[in-house]
Amino acid sequence: MTELDFIRDFLQANRKYVQDKYAAKSGVTVSTKAHASDLLTEVDLTIQKRFVERVNAVYPGDVVVGEEGEYSRYPRDLRSRAWIIDPIDGTYNFVRGLHPIFAISIAFAVDGKNAAAGVLLPITGEMFLAEQGAGSFCDGLRLRVSEVQQASHARIDLDFSGLEDRFQFLDRGVEVLRQVGQVRCYGSAVASICQIATGDCDAYLHMNLAPWDFAASQLIVEEAGGMASRLNGGPLHLFEPKQGLLITNGAIHHEMLAMLRG
Amino acid sequence: MTELDFIRDFLQANRKYVQDKYAAKSGVTVSTKAHASDLLTEVDLTIQKRFVERVNAVYPGDVVVGEEGEYSRYPRDLRSRAWIIDPIDGTYNFVRGLHPIFAISIAFAVDGKNAAAGVLLPITGEMFLAEQGAGSFCDGLRLRVSEVQQASHARIDLDFSGLEDRFQFLDRGVEVLRQVGQVRCYGSAVASICQIATGDCDAYLHMNLAPWDFAASQLIVEEAGGMASRLNGGPLHLFEPKQGLLITNGAIHHEMLAMLRG
Repeated sequence: MTELDFIRDFLQANRKYVQDKYAAKSGVTVSTKAHASDLLTEVDLTIQKRFVERVNAVYPGDVVVGEEGEYSRYPRDLRSRAWIIDPIDGTYNFVRGLHPIFAISIAFAVDGKNAAAGVLLPITGEMFLAEQGAGSFCDGLRLRVSEVQQASHARIDLDFSGLEDRFQFLDRGVEVLRQVGQVRCYGSAVASICQIATGDCDAYLHMNLAPWDFAASQLIVEEAGGMASRLNGGPLHLFEPKQGLLITNGAIHHEMLAMLRG
Repeated sequence: MTELDFIRDFLQANRKYVQDKYAAKSGVTVSTKAHASDLLTEVDLTIQKRFVERVNAVYPGDVVVGEEGEYSRYPRDLRSRAWIIDPIDGTYNFVRGLHPIFAISIAFAVDGKNAAAGVLLPITGEMFLAEQGAGSFCDGLRLRVSEVQQASHARIDLDFSGLEDRFQFLDRGVEVLRQVGQVRCYGSAVASICQIATGDCDAYLHMNLAPWDFAASQLIVEEAGGMASRLNGGPLHLFEPKQGLLITNGAIHHEMLAMLRG
């Protein structure tokens, strides 16, 4: 079993659990939303706990880096075999919203570099898989980024997230709002970035992301021919403090970078 | 058969057609997107044509106002019985994007006022129905707006649409971006506005909408306890030239209006 098989099996095995919990949330939606956050916390923690158990069983000694609790620490030794999981990316959407735009995101890294990745949209069912050097796939179909050549014809997904990041966005990113063809804001970095790999979106911009928010989807886009960098154009290393990033189809990457201030 | 029954029957009868066409578009997505726009045009025109034929058959003499072609004219006599249809709201999303966020929107108006409304999200299947004075419903469940009381705790959907409207947004609406809790941009006014009725979203803001973009969903929100106005707080009349609007849960309406410049 390869690491990619391990990721795929885990995603498949946990889809129904998330589907059931999301359906239970619908019951909450029509009465009061007070319990929906608790429900999400339960799902987040359960998925992460199950993943840690699976890694410990199959790959003892490997490091797990995750969004929740004690696992949010980076590996001390970057040469470690490391698994990076976001059990639910798009948590607010899980709790509020008609549209089930959230994802389970899992990457496997060696020497601090992505080697394999999987993303599942649990409700609609799309599964994205990629291995370094071997391409990326959605439900078995090979993915390829769009051929859009100009930002003014492009569709850009971005995220205004909380107020702190938003001020930074309005400072550094406002030219993007002034120049690109279409803007979307879905509230799930992983779901948006995967759309670049399918050619449905041309760029994703965020001012402040942690590794578990982009590790898997970054590899999925790169293996579909796209490009990822920091906001200054520098390389996107996995285990750095939270900061901004730009992921594109490649063709509009430099034009997008030039729009960013500072 | 009431006008609401007529709307519901039409939406139900046309769901499979849109589902099939959207599935055909998926085939386009993985190769080239060149034909997806043509496919959408075909769907738009077909739905509107079928609707005109049904209205002519069941309610001869009624006026149809629609997004496409000759039907985009408003009724000469506002006292007319008028049907307002957007065959596909969220056209760009139909053509590009993993998430099927688009809607069929139908309203029935007398004396220029909404009397009955229906919205269908064809892929996920939610159907919203409302009659003036009788409440609004999604799949049979009575809807009620959220109880969020402050914009800083609120989720706001908005639309940056094309570049012309976007400059207007960045001029008049930038304080919204600076102050509200969560921002989303889905690219379908109808889908976003209906989320206010379900309590999943607290406000929707747009700088430039035509009647077919909001007629049905406005009534659905108002019948769920929400509020709709122009950007200056004035009443939202149906058959006015394209312009801005604000639709909210009511509780944050005045706070949101105060954020808008000019």
